[in-house]
Amino acid sequence: MRDIRVGLLGCGNVGGGFFRLLEQNRPRIAARYGLRIAVHRILVREPEKERPGISRELLTRNAVDVIDADGDVVVELVGGTHSAAAFVRRALSQGRDVVTANKALLAERGPEIFAEAARRKVKIGFEASVCGGIPIIRFLQGGLAGDSVESITGIVNGTCNYILTRMEEDVSFEAAIGEAQQKGLAEADPSLDVSGIDAAQKLSILSSLAFDAPVRRESITGIRGLTPRDLRAARRKGRALRLVAEANRVPGGVELRVEPRELSADDPLALAKGETNALRIRGRALGELYLIGKGAGGLPTATAVLADVIEISSFRAP
Amino acid sequence: MRDIRVGLLGCGNVGGGFFRLLEQNRPRIAARYGLRIAVHRILVREPEKERPGISRELLTRNAVDVIDADGDVVVELVGGTHSAAAFVRRALSQGRDVVTANKALLAERGPEIFAEAARRKVKIGFEASVCGGIPIIRFLQGGLAGDSVESITGIVNGTCNYILTRMEEDVSFEAAIGEAQQKGLAEADPSLDVSGIDAAQKLSILSSLAFDAPVRRESITGIRGLTPRDLRAARRKGRALRLVAEANRVPGGVELRVEPRELSADDPLALAKGETNALRIRGRALGELYLIGKGAGGLPTATAVLADVIEISSFRAP
Repeated sequence: MRDIRVGLLGCGNVGGGFFRLLEQNRPRIAARYGLRIAVHRILVREPEKERPGISRELLTRNAVDVIDADGDVVVELVGGTHSAAAFVRRALSQGRDVVTANKALLAERGPEIFAEAARRKVKIGFEASVCGGIPIIRFLQGGLAGDSVESITGIVNGTCNYILTRMEEDVSFEAAIGEAQQKGLAEADPSLDVSGIDAAQKLSILSSLAFDAPVRRESITGIRGLTPRDLRAARRKGRALRLVAEANRVPGGVELRVEPRELSADDPLALAKGETNALRIRGRALGELYLIGKGAGGLPTATAVLADVIEISSFRAP
Repeated sequence: MRDIRVGLLGCGNVGGGFFRLLEQNRPRIAARYGLRIAVHRILVREPEKERPGISRELLTRNAVDVIDADGDVVVELVGGTHSAAAFVRRALSQGRDVVTANKALLAERGPEIFAEAARRKVKIGFEASVCGGIPIIRFLQGGLAGDSVESITGIVNGTCNYILTRMEEDVSFEAAIGEAQQKGLAEADPSLDVSGIDAAQKLSILSSLAFDAPVRRESITGIRGLTPRDLRAARRKGRALRLVAEANRVPGGVELRVEPRELSADDPLALAKGETNALRIRGRALGELYLIGKGAGGLPTATAVLADVIEISSFRAP
């Protein structure tokens, strides 16, 4: 049995979910993986706030307390890029492995962070950064290691998909955004979502893993301007209007597109309702593989974070 | 760069696909994983037969030539259980890692083989043994490491699914079996497929990975006796009749069922047409995840074999 000490940066939706999930699964993780994983310090904004099940002694407002305390893995769930980049760099410099769910950080600073991790011989887990609970990073890195990816197509923005699904039910664009905000899906400023930029960032992270080739052309169209009428018109044709992100291998590189597209009713991607995400990977030898599941949400995303912590911990020298 | 020597037992549909896939992807595997993988010996039944792209000097009719020759990984693709078990045991005793696509072997002798591998400190890769190109083993072992699986439901027998899909088009049960045999999907004796036993074997391997709990009850019903009329009747109700395999966590263990079931048209499992496989995993924290893809076929299955060889080789001491 090995002890693994985890420093947790951020204790919101995903961080709190991670803490609970770890509590619930501790006996199973010990029995199956021989790991006794404990969170020894948690960075929060308001240490005074009541957090059921989490001892106040673990909480601190100082990130350095978390990162520098003797530990094995730092889990970064603060979001944003500025502080997060500084925290991750410090964790790497201390020889900690890092697990992050921060898509924006990887889209902006990925190459630099991965190079630093390689130099320090530590690992970075980032399954949670794209499509929450769908194990797409693992699949591209592991299951498809022997094949050549030809295309990735998917519905990767749960907020847009929720909005479009509601507009099919005759709710206006603005009202649907309001609902998505109330449900905690959309940010106060949902412009990254509805512009398609968030989907492009996710696709770009997946493409860098899948293609070993530079992005040659990028075209991004969002869902602003669509009306319930457009969605009903698609439906009458037996089709579903969805924000589709697609990366295709082309001569000399990769072409990325994000755009609203009509999908036929028997396309598995069209089954992604509400905040569900769906991906189609086409491999040269594999053919088509579909992955459909929860793309966001505290607990589903926390499963990806915990899976990374377990996998990375399994490879730490005893 | 590290050299990895692979001994290949069997060069049929999957074995030949594995050899070609490795040839095509050699530069990519070297660049990305730092591995130079070469097949140094191949067990075949007829060494005289012409095999385009495969040098005759690699071929032998003697399995010991393949297993005992100085190598790193033995890939077992001969099928069946008697010889395959002897070959795998010998490979383990020589300290070779083993990759196998042999579902029957694992269903019959899995615990004994895994125990022997653990004793010898060698690895066994078996992603290809269940649902061909769908990376379900990796997902249960890795991506779901931190969650508790509640159920696994799926269409895991491509032969039955092909037969049922054809019966929807008014082809008789017997004629559909004949077609499946001509397409190389069904064995000369398809009774393991149509009885549901093959599906139960697959489900049983997946359950042993997913649940950490004994199977308490098993109930297996096949598709014999169904008629095109039954399938059309389901279709008229907007439903699809499919052979569904399901494992559910119940108090004190796991309950396995295999039976023909009517699925609603918007159930992603119902989208699996022909020889396609589809799986729904329900995790306590994750919610539902669907995986849909090629469950059989030489090349899709070969991608799983090669992915295992790459992963296992990445962990060999240099």
